Amino acid sequence: MSEFKVAGTSDIEVTRKGLSRALDYFAERGCCQLFVLSDPFLASNGLASQIKELNQNRFQIFIYSDFSGEPKLASVQDAMMAARNFAADGVLGIGGGSSLDMAKIVKTCMNTGQGVADFVMQANPLPPLSVQVPSVLIPTTAGTGSEASGTNILALENGNKGWVSGPETRPNLALLDPHFTTSLPANLTAWTGMDALVHAFEAATNRYTHQGAQLYAHQAIRLTLHALPEAVRSPDKLDARTDMLLASYYAGRAIHLCSTSIAHALSHALATLAPVSHGLATALAFEITLPFIVSAQTKEMQSAAAAFGVSQLSAMPSVLTQFMDRLGIERHLPEAFNKYSAEDLMPVLLSDEIRPMREACVKYASEQQLFDFSMALLG
Amino acid sequence: MSEFKVAGTSDIEVTRKGLSRALDYFAERGCCQLFVLSDPFLASNGLASQIKELNQNRFQIFIYSDFSGEPKLASVQDAMMAARNFAADGVLGIGGGSSLDMAKIVKTCMNTGQGVADFVMQANPLPPLSVQVPSVLIPTTAGTGSEASGTNILALENGNKGWVSGPETRPNLALLDPHFTTSLPANLTAWTGMDALVHAFEAATNRYTHQGAQLYAHQAIRLTLHALPEAVRSPDKLDARTDMLLASYYAGRAIHLCSTSIAHALSHALATLAPVSHGLATALAFEITLPFIVSAQTKEMQSAAAAFGVSQLSAMPSVLTQFMDRLGIERHLPEAFNKYSAEDLMPVLLSDEIRPMREACVKYASEQQLFDFSMALLG
Repeated sequence: MSEFKVAGTSDIEVTRKGLSRALDYFAERGCCQLFVLSDPFLASNGLASQIKELNQNRFQIFIYSDFSGEPKLASVQDAMMAARNFAADGVLGIGGGSSLDMAKIVKTCMNTGQGVADFVMQANPLPPLSVQVPSVLIPTTAGTGSEASGTNILALENGNKGWVSGPETRPNLALLDPHFTTSLPANLTAWTGMDALVHAFEAATNRYTHQGAQLYAHQAIRLTLHALPEAVRSPDKLDARTDMLLASYYAGRAIHLCSTSIAHALSHALATLAPVSHGLATALAFEITLPFIVSAQTKEMQSAAAAFGVSQLSAMPSVLTQFMDRLGIERHLPEAFNKYSAEDLMPVLLSDEIRPMREACVKYASEQQLFDFSMALLG
Repeated sequence: MSEFKVAGTSDIEVTRKGLSRALDYFAERGCCQLFVLSDPFLASNGLASQIKELNQNRFQIFIYSDFSGEPKLASVQDAMMAARNFAADGVLGIGGGSSLDMAKIVKTCMNTGQGVADFVMQANPLPPLSVQVPSVLIPTTAGTGSEASGTNILALENGNKGWVSGPETRPNLALLDPHFTTSLPANLTAWTGMDALVHAFEAATNRYTHQGAQLYAHQAIRLTLHALPEAVRSPDKLDARTDMLLASYYAGRAIHLCSTSIAHALSHALATLAPVSHGLATALAFEITLPFIVSAQTKEMQSAAAAFGVSQLSAMPSVLTQFMDRLGIERHLPEAFNKYSAEDLMPVLLSDEIRPMREACVKYASEQQLFDFSMALLG
């Protein structure tokens, strides 16, 4: 592709003192009412006392963690109202992709006088960064790359997915601190890391890929290849955790520039049937669809495989399978999926919501092809 | 380095319709008084008629090109006053590094009511991007990477160098359009391209290098290796020109993140003696200093050499020499340097202004070492 766009980014810092750095950042900007949106797990595991210790009486702190799972419109609105009522002048998001997406929406909308619903699907223009409160994000999983993107997914009241998106939702600063990911269990480390790998591989090979996105995608693939097995095996290895945070950030940057592809089509479709870790669903879907996309045999596919250490493209699926074996990923969906079959997945796969991801794929997947993938996933 | 910062960036677009895209960008933002700061060469070679053709009565246009050489404080102030008096509500910079630096300073300062001098050496805080007029940059050389940085050099009234710097000076958008570089003569293509290569190699190997900067630096090295000889040999090859614009952008990004090194110390010092193309001076200084820096034999040096296709570090200097031969770079400074000797360069090399670049080098160059480099350059 001879023409392409590379959207700007927020500042990032790779640090070993993320929380301290975040508080200093807010203090330097004169903030005194700090709204912390955090995963419930963190909030109930010492986050408040850590913040208190570092606070030095600089801030009033409001820790909000009254939510679970994927962000829902009502939850995000509730969080935003809490920030508004608290008169927050700074927003710190700490958590996985859901927490970070919520924090981004809260900090973007809180000073508008309007509700979150007013900004869904770009119904109204978002305020520029300069009139928003300062915001910092600290990811606690290395997978979604939410800190790199201006796309924020939430579930609407009718159950459909909606977006609050735009460069205005990017944070001022993302802090990548490996200490925040060391407590992640091995299976979640593997699943979220696979999400980053699939983001990168899809962005590097889909119909919209370009040289600007591939710079980030290939680096994410290289980092994941060497760091993810080590992060799974030795949870406390800070260097491997740092590299996975970078991989996740770069992969997030890559999909922000040129979207995902067919594995994410399947993964998002699965999530509408029953609760499942996004990383696990994506990893299973990627393994199943890889022979199909690899058969496109494009130059971009060769380069992405090469970044994964694979010189013969035809070997890519088996190398990926070995990689997932090394990560100890069990190849089955949660029990809640037992009652579903391929027939249940097909209407979702053919829906308007999933179409863009299906169409992004370098090879167009026919309905029969989608059915075969669904059979492989659900029988 | 386990901790590092990667500053955010502007949007960039790789395009084949740069001027048209720039005008549309300003129109979308409601601009109607467009201030165009352009190289004198372009301004007198049809730029006005090109803009007129694309204008469609959308803008009043002021083309400013009343300057030459490196930006001087008085010139930049004059340009800024012209933009202010014109009541510009958009600034388009088109040209080499000097024009782009000037355009960045103009668009940053013009609505402040203050003079350019008030912002030199961070004497006063710069206004945030959101209260500035929209700005677009189109580089016409592939070398300085000014469009990637928030650092802008200008000559002060006492002859010293000064800076107007900060992320606020970054443009809203940089457009990389190869058509704007095809008219560059072979020697300037080679010299400016070498500047990009040296930026990248120095940023990838100096004392402050880190993984975040190396992502950009290595890509710049790889792109230069294959595209620069082609751009010199076949000036109209748009793909090679595009890759060099990207190399220059990435290399600019890399030095913005972690600075240059000893070749730039020598190159900047030379420029204080007599006029010389920055790219040529830098290329000559790089070739002379390369055996010295390569002898540091760091892991980072290995990686940078590998990006240049060199697996044996000891071979790097001779491979670089062959590369410069292929580019047809003659190894001598302009005649104006004939009257200078190493003794003249030494006081400059030891000055406060040059010290940071000397200290950035992965190996500390002693005075004797600096004298040897000076002898090699000036005899």
